[in-house]
Amino acid sequence: MLNESLPKIWYGGDYNPEQWDEQTWDEDIRMFKLAGIDIATLNVFSWALNQPDETTYNFEWLDDKIERLYQHGIYTCLATSTAAHPAWMARKYPDVLRVDFEGRKRKFGARHNSCPNSPTYRKYSSRIASKLAERYKDHPAVLVWHVSNEYGGYCYCEQCEAAFREWLQQRYGTLEAVNKAWNTSFWGHTFYDWTEIVSPSALSEERPGNVSFFQGISLDYRRFMSQSLLDCYKLEYDAIREQDSKTPITTNLMGTFLDLDYFEWAKHLDVVSWDNYPRIDTPVSRTAMTHDLMRGLKSGQPFMLMEQTPSQQNWQAYNSLKRPGVMRLWSYQSVARGADTVMFFQLRRSVGATEKYHGAVIEHVGHEHTRVFRETAALGKELEQLSDQLLDARTNARVGIVFDWENRWAINLSSGPTIALDYVGEVHKYYDAFYQQNIQVDMIGVEEDLTKYDIVIAPVLYMVKEGYARRLEEFVSNGGTFITTFFSGVVNENDLVTLGGYPGELRQLLGIWAEEIDALHPDEKNKIVIKDDVGSLSGEYSCNILFDLIHSEGAEVIAEYGDDFYQGMPVITKNKFGKGSAWYVASSPDADFLQDLVTTVCNEKGITGLIQADHGVETAAREKNGKSFLFILNHNTNASTFDLEDKYMRDLLSGQKLTGKVTIEAKDVMILTEEKLGDL
Amino acid sequence: MLNESLPKIWYGGDYNPEQWDEQTWDEDIRMFKLAGIDIATLNVFSWALNQPDETTYNFEWLDDKIERLYQHGIYTCLATSTAAHPAWMARKYPDVLRVDFEGRKRKFGARHNSCPNSPTYRKYSSRIASKLAERYKDHPAVLVWHVSNEYGGYCYCEQCEAAFREWLQQRYGTLEAVNKAWNTSFWGHTFYDWTEIVSPSALSEERPGNVSFFQGISLDYRRFMSQSLLDCYKLEYDAIREQDSKTPITTNLMGTFLDLDYFEWAKHLDVVSWDNYPRIDTPVSRTAMTHDLMRGLKSGQPFMLMEQTPSQQNWQAYNSLKRPGVMRLWSYQSVARGADTVMFFQLRRSVGATEKYHGAVIEHVGHEHTRVFRETAALGKELEQLSDQLLDARTNARVGIVFDWENRWAINLSSGPTIALDYVGEVHKYYDAFYQQNIQVDMIGVEEDLTKYDIVIAPVLYMVKEGYARRLEEFVSNGGTFITTFFSGVVNENDLVTLGGYPGELRQLLGIWAEEIDALHPDEKNKIVIKDDVGSLSGEYSCNILFDLIHSEGAEVIAEYGDDFYQGMPVITKNKFGKGSAWYVASSPDADFLQDLVTTVCNEKGITGLIQADHGVETAAREKNGKSFLFILNHNTNASTFDLEDKYMRDLLSGQKLTGKVTIEAKDVMILTEEKLGDL
Amino acid sequence: MLNESLPKIWYGGDYNPEQWDEQTWDEDIRMFKLAGIDIATLNVFSWALNQPDETTYNFEWLDDKIERLYQHGIYTCLATSTAAHPAWMARKYPDVLRVDFEGRKRKFGARHNSCPNSPTYRKYSSRIASKLAERYKDHPAVLVWHVSNEYGGYCYCEQCEAAFREWLQQRYGTLEAVNKAWNTSFWGHTFYDWTEIVSPSALSEERPGNVSFFQGISLDYRRFMSQSLLDCYKLEYDAIREQDSKTPITTNLMGTFLDLDYFEWAKHLDVVSWDNYPRIDTPVSRTAMTHDLMRGLKSGQPFMLMEQTPSQQNWQAYNSLKRPGVMRLWSYQSVARGADTVMFFQLRRSVGATEKYHGAVIEHVGHEHTRVFRETAALGKELEQLSDQLLDARTNARVGIVFDWENRWAINLSSGPTIALDYVGEVHKYYDAFYQQNIQVDMIGVEEDLTKYDIVIAPVLYMVKEGYARRLEEFVSNGGTFITTFFSGVVNENDLVTLGGYPGELRQLLGIWAEEIDALHPDEKNKIVIKDDVGSLSGEYSCNILFDLIHSEGAEVIAEYGDDFYQGMPVITKNKFGKGSAWYVASSPDADFLQDLVTTVCNEKGITGLIQADHGVETAAREKNGKSFLFILNHNTNASTFDLEDKYMRDLLSGQKLTGKVTIEAKDVMILTEEKLGDL
Repeated sequence: MLNESLPKIWYGGDYNPEQWDEQTWDEDIRMFKLAGIDIATLNVFSWALNQPDETTYNFEWLDDKIERLYQHGIYTCLATSTAAHPAWMARKYPDVLRVDFEGRKRKFGARHNSCPNSPTYRKYSSRIASKLAERYKDHPAVLVWHVSNEYGGYCYCEQCEAAFREWLQQRYGTLEAVNKAWNTSFWGHTFYDWTEIVSPSALSEERPGNVSFFQGISLDYRRFMSQSLLDCYKLEYDAIREQDSKTPITTNLMGTFLDLDYFEWAKHLDVVSWDNYPRIDTPVSRTAMTHDLMRGLKSGQPFMLMEQTPSQQNWQAYNSLKRPGVMRLWSYQSVARGADTVMFFQLRRSVGATEKYHGAVIEHVGHEHTRVFRETAALGKELEQLSDQLLDARTNARVGIVFDWENRWAINLSSGPTIALDYVGEVHKYYDAFYQQNIQVDMIGVEEDLTKYDIVIAPVLYMVKEGYARRLEEFVSNGGTFITTFFSGVVNENDLVTLGGYPGELRQLLGIWAEEIDALHPDEKNKIVIKDDVGSLSGEYSCNILFDLIHSEGAEVIAEYGDDFYQGMPVITKNKFGKGSAWYVASSPDADFLQDLVTTVCNEKGITGLIQADHGVETAAREKNGKSFLFILNHNTNASTFDLEDKYMRDLLSGQKLTGKVTIEAKDVMILTEEKLGDL
Repeated sequence: MLNESLPKIWYGGDYNPEQWDEQTWDEDIRMFKLAGIDIATLNVFSWALNQPDETTYNFEWLDDKIERLYQHGIYTCLATSTAAHPAWMARKYPDVLRVDFEGRKRKFGARHNSCPNSPTYRKYSSRIASKLAERYKDHPAVLVWHVSNEYGGYCYCEQCEAAFREWLQQRYGTLEAVNKAWNTSFWGHTFYDWTEIVSPSALSEERPGNVSFFQGISLDYRRFMSQSLLDCYKLEYDAIREQDSKTPITTNLMGTFLDLDYFEWAKHLDVVSWDNYPRIDTPVSRTAMTHDLMRGLKSGQPFMLMEQTPSQQNWQAYNSLKRPGVMRLWSYQSVARGADTVMFFQLRRSVGATEKYHGAVIEHVGHEHTRVFRETAALGKELEQLSDQLLDARTNARVGIVFDWENRWAINLSSGPTIALDYVGEVHKYYDAFYQQNIQVDMIGVEEDLTKYDIVIAPVLYMVKEGYARRLEEFVSNGGTFITTFFSGVVNENDLVTLGGYPGELRQLLGIWAEEIDALHPDEKNKIVIKDDVGSLSGEYSCNILFDLIHSEGAEVIAEYGDDFYQGMPVITKNKFGKGSAWYVASSPDADFLQDLVTTVCNEKGITGLIQADHGVETAAREKNGKSFLFILNHNTNASTFDLEDKYMRDLLSGQKLTGKVTIEAKDVMILTEEKLGDL
Repeated sequence: MLNESLPKIWYGGDYNPEQWDEQTWDEDIRMFKLAGIDIATLNVFSWALNQPDETTYNFEWLDDKIERLYQHGIYTCLATSTAAHPAWMARKYPDVLRVDFEGRKRKFGARHNSCPNSPTYRKYSSRIASKLAERYKDHPAVLVWHVSNEYGGYCYCEQCEAAFREWLQQRYGTLEAVNKAWNTSFWGHTFYDWTEIVSPSALSEERPGNVSFFQGISLDYRRFMSQSLLDCYKLEYDAIREQDSKTPITTNLMGTFLDLDYFEWAKHLDVVSWDNYPRIDTPVSRTAMTHDLMRGLKSGQPFMLMEQTPSQQNWQAYNSLKRPGVMRLWSYQSVARGADTVMFFQLRRSVGATEKYHGAVIEHVGHEHTRVFRETAALGKELEQLSDQLLDARTNARVGIVFDWENRWAINLSSGPTIALDYVGEVHKYYDAFYQQNIQVDMIGVEEDLTKYDIVIAPVLYMVKEGYARRLEEFVSNGGTFITTFFSGVVNENDLVTLGGYPGELRQLLGIWAEEIDALHPDEKNKIVIKDDVGSLSGEYSCNILFDLIHSEGAEVIAEYGDDFYQGMPVITKNKFGKGSAWYVASSPDADFLQDLVTTVCNEKGITGLIQADHGVETAAREKNGKSFLFILNHNTNASTFDLEDKYMRDLLSGQKLTGKVTIEAKDVMILTEEKLGDL
């Protein structure tokens, strides 16, 4: 449990009292209480207020706010205020300003704007974290530390360049090793001195849109930048921990955000927290996948939903309102998938600047008589009633889908074979196939223990890290089912090709050789023709994007291409390996194929969906102390009926006891637990 | 009247004899006379010629050209030549070069390229204006001064940054006031010293496409830049006025050009002049609106049509020729809407550089036997015959449509709720509804006296400036009809939200409260369902883009939304306020709705169209000394018939006397005046 | 013949042994032999290896590779390694780094990255060429020198700016002449001192996308940059020639590459070589045209196909595989059109960096059991059998199509009349009309001798260089047929309009005057209506993009416009001039029109296609010692039949003897020579 002081699903969000006056503060507290809010994230962007010049620190205002809220039963998620440096610092110490990808030294403005290798930034950001921790470590209101905010963006300044060289020296030891790792004999890029290495930007090896001429340096720069920002986080973490040994520390992540390797970051977070901002047209299964990924960062440990909007965003193209019931529905979707908090950006809308049209619990009108407030308050009441029942409950999945940031970077950077390959989209296609069948999935990193799974899927496992092929072989040997796809097993961690035939280190496990890789415009399709029906796989399907031209080297050919000059070559293979089997999907298939593939492999393993329900009805289960909580989330605009058959369940939200056919209203949610017969 | 020396509609345009030789000059004059040209704009881009180095001035060539033309009866519109600095100046004094939005110091090239806060530019531009005025103030040929040319573009250099800080000090007095106006407590942007403020560019608070993270500073920078350029103009104005107390001074504007607040500029122009460059597919009502806007800049005072092409442009994507008759038709459209001159860019096509494929009266072929020349000469003859009849005639409109540059900037800069909102397009939708019914409209600024109007429309009056709500209340109290739309009344002049519920200061006047604002992709529509027929409003219409979710607080609900979760909420309301009424249109409606709305409110006020005519037949009226001139402009490719009923009219162009059904040929024009019965 | 040491079509390609180890070198040689490879291009990107610091040179590795290959019968195409400078050089001498179009000083990275006016680059690039020539001039393996690689890109640094001023002084003598040539009196850009001239970049006169405000300077900068890069080439050429008086020297060109005037370059190449990279959807006639253009650079002299991929590229959007047979088919297409070599990029795929997904003879799998290798080896065998039969054979065309880089630059830079005009595409439309009828065409420069042709076509001859009009007149006077189009004859070499009426210097020859030029959106079409049938021209066709409004001044009007206000004006004219005739096509016509036009003018001249064949079957002929080699290339996916009638031919590839109806398989090739009857 996050913190025993508040043993329930925390409910609240970002709050910026420094933008307001005394009268508003009182009104805010009155309304927070009305809404059932019990936690406020304070101090996110107050560095300039906290430290008006180099030597002065001023926290009285914060003392007052924390105390004022606490006296009304509202706890604090305490931010360190370092996500935007003060203007005076930018002027006095320009080293805090980034140089951007185009090589331009930036001026003061925006946020998330500090060079991560700036000595000034590192010194003052850790110092203020230390001062805050010293001051508030014993305050009973402070439940969790929120370091900085939404880390991201890269810098290309000279101090980053120097730090990059040091990072390389640590990683590779010698310049010879760097030259080898990056294959610099290509295009005569051999380095004879460390100082010859410059950062890969639009001025050197890269072009906008993840285009690079040297994938090795570009990949390493991404690692280095992710690490540099993480170092900033860790400096603050350590500064806090030096003062405060217990309070959990986090920073808010952003789902499938590109820049940072969150699996690496999560090792240094006591609890994962993240900000969930789907668009009106974001597939709900995409949001579900992202929640599962955030849960997977720390191997299933529940996370904080740190931010979501109660109503609408401001930075989307068309900032549609969340329709009635949707805020509640999506809040429970978070909880269903591992969130132990439901928090908003923001509690009160600001009066000016860029986020003033971002929704808030308290709107510009300032009173509680709004649809948004009513929905917020109603949810607050429900969460209060749920109490601590769900806290720390876990998800039991027998299927793991691999997600890897470094692999993603390498795929993005690859020059050829196609620009149409979208790693996250490809992963989501597989995820969605399970989601549609209500089968629980864990999103896992490449360091995750595989023994807990019956099925492991690694879409486009282009980069195979050291030892991973062997671990997959063990997994399959021991009876696991493994599925991977086209353009897998191609390179090592430095994006150097594993010679001797694709899919490289995975070749034995898969029992195939991919001789060539064809790429066509995404509108051009080929056919997957099943040879003999296997499980649900039958007839023809379509595929596109990339087409591996493979030869079986022992694998069973499940399906062949139906068109083009490689008609008759295998497109789907299944290789027995030890007690298990390894599938290869040599092209990007349509959704129908994936449905049937999922059914087939799950049937083999005896894995079934949580429940049978209509399309658009999402399910998920969390378990705790032997008790299972089954979430039913109706994303449809119509009511939907599902069948509990002879099970007897109780809905924690309505209190209703249910069996047989059950109807759930449009946008409604149920959290069902099994009842003993006698209880009914 | 502009200048009594030439009491007719001036006819001529830009002329660059410095690009040609003696023989050509003679030929030019011969052809100008053939074409009925009586004014030439000289010296627009001759700074390098006039001032070949820092200390030398050379105007003999100009003496000769002015004199030469004058001896043949051709007057001069005399430019000051400061729209492009000389190359030597850029090399010797790089402070004249701008720094662009991307932070790049520019090099010599192009035009409209001078930093408006460059001491060098200000010194030498006003000096040359002074020298010109001293030299030509008494020359009878000079009818009007043309300062610089098409001012525009912003600069982001350090001298502009310093000047911006001074401007802010003058505007706000204290840094505290700046912090408050820009709400810098958001994202911790608080300034503790003036020097911490930097210009809002792509390197700081902005991104390309009018994206800003701090609307306050971005809005002020636009004001400051508009003012800085205006200061340059004013320096030249004053330098001229010091020498020449009488000759009118102008600079040529560009219609709905984004960068400059032309209402502010117009205060310092003796006469408005502007350059009209519609594309082949520009709606004629859009051009009409822009003329009306230019006329509105000085509250109805006639303006100069300073530039138009006789045939085609060069800088459009596809530079289509003006079809036969169209140059004449569009020239009269200008006159119909307030122009007292018809002038071209350009009298002779240049032989090289970027505008050589821009149409001209004298084409590269060099003789008069061209379609374009024939049409030009024919028009010249007509204008001569029209003499001074129309000069200084005014438009009497009972409808005013509000247009405000600062509001437009604020809407453009807004982060949310939608990128689909186009202020000028939205204003034009309302304008077009009147245009289609041949109802005269004034385009007015927010300082305009409202008492002259029966109906005032302010589409998307997002920013309500100090005192304007009160003035609108007075207008309605006294019986006026006011119409405004969704996303109005939201912010004050600093883009700070008026708290307490949208539409803020307009809430009482409108009798409504807008609880939420939904944004959808423009392809997604809702329905406007009229409750009980009101005037012509009946049945259903469609709307899109933004959808205010409003509650009546006294206003009559004229129509409700037909779809989505706000079905049944008001979308059109009408509030009685004093003797008048205030309408609210809560979404962006289709053209049919606006037609019916216009009919309805005009009927209530007894306002009718000038005449009943087919679609594509434009009408406008100017009045002078109790006499009305009714323009009939047939934009169609077919002849069209309209009915004068029992009125007896004379067409000034053909001399024909008309009554009853009248046919106007395709692309033809009539200027009708009522005749006494005895005259027929 | 290129070099008598290897009297056959050379077969091989780029090889980078410096990226590999000893074991791989042995394996490579084994496989090269298997594939019939007899030439390897070495040392393309080895500068950093050859010269690890300023004073050290290291060629032992290269000695070994050349020797090792030579001992196995494989010759060397020896590159000078100067297409990418070493990292140490960039750090020590930043003058080698370019400043880009946006004004940004670049850092080390990518390739083709050296400032062409860098003293350091010029010094060290010619020095290494000299050292290489000294070392290898007598090595029997070295068949040809390959200077640098794919020259291209422009630089905008200060040393280029200074060199540009010198270049201008040489070209124009005086600043007055420059001012006149660029028409700087426009916009007051007059220069009074050479130092005032800056390079035309995004910071001065240009904008991205070939947009310029002063075409004169922009055109000259392109000439200057093409010349600057050529000077770099020439420095290396001279350095080699000083040591090695005989071995031919080349650099690999890139077809219709925009940046460089290849006709100017070709004067300094002993043999033209080029890199051919069509996409899967590139029209085969476009590739054919480009081959013909490369052949035309040196007036028909055979060229080297220096690079093509055996399978796929990496830098296209979708890198499709060459379908089975296509590599062979396209190789013979090259040979058919003048290639005396068939060479690949690359012989072995690199293990890392940006080209690792570019196809190669030896794929990552490393062995010969691949489709690509088998096809390569099969072709190797065929080429061996062909021996020297085709070497140095020539193409006899009676039709010349003019292609001119300076004209193309000027059209690209033109502001107006349309952005839709694509010079190369327009030329290709005419080329394709001949191609479809199997009529041989030469692509010729404006310095080419015209007397060898019956028909000369110059599509969009916008720029008419000094003396060219007179030469065209002579050509027609003497009986030639000349065809040109809309927007021709407009400017001189400085992009200054030829006054007095379009088409300027061509007006007499064409017997027309173009009064106006209309531009419409490309979707808007007009009609070409044939008046009285002429040859195959009959009925109606369509046209678009630009529409010259012309008057006949003696020319016969073949067709008139069918629509718009210029309906009835001439659109196709034919002017008798001396013994010949000159056609004018006043708009951009559809393909049907061009087919009929080609038929008509060829019939008049008795020019017929090589053979009658189905669409998709390409033909070309080369001749040598009175013997003709007729290539039949079936690009279709089906077999096709053509009729040899009573001719008796032998297919050099299959050895088959053929007469009457002959069937060629899909993707197959035949090289037919006429047999004496007795031979059959």
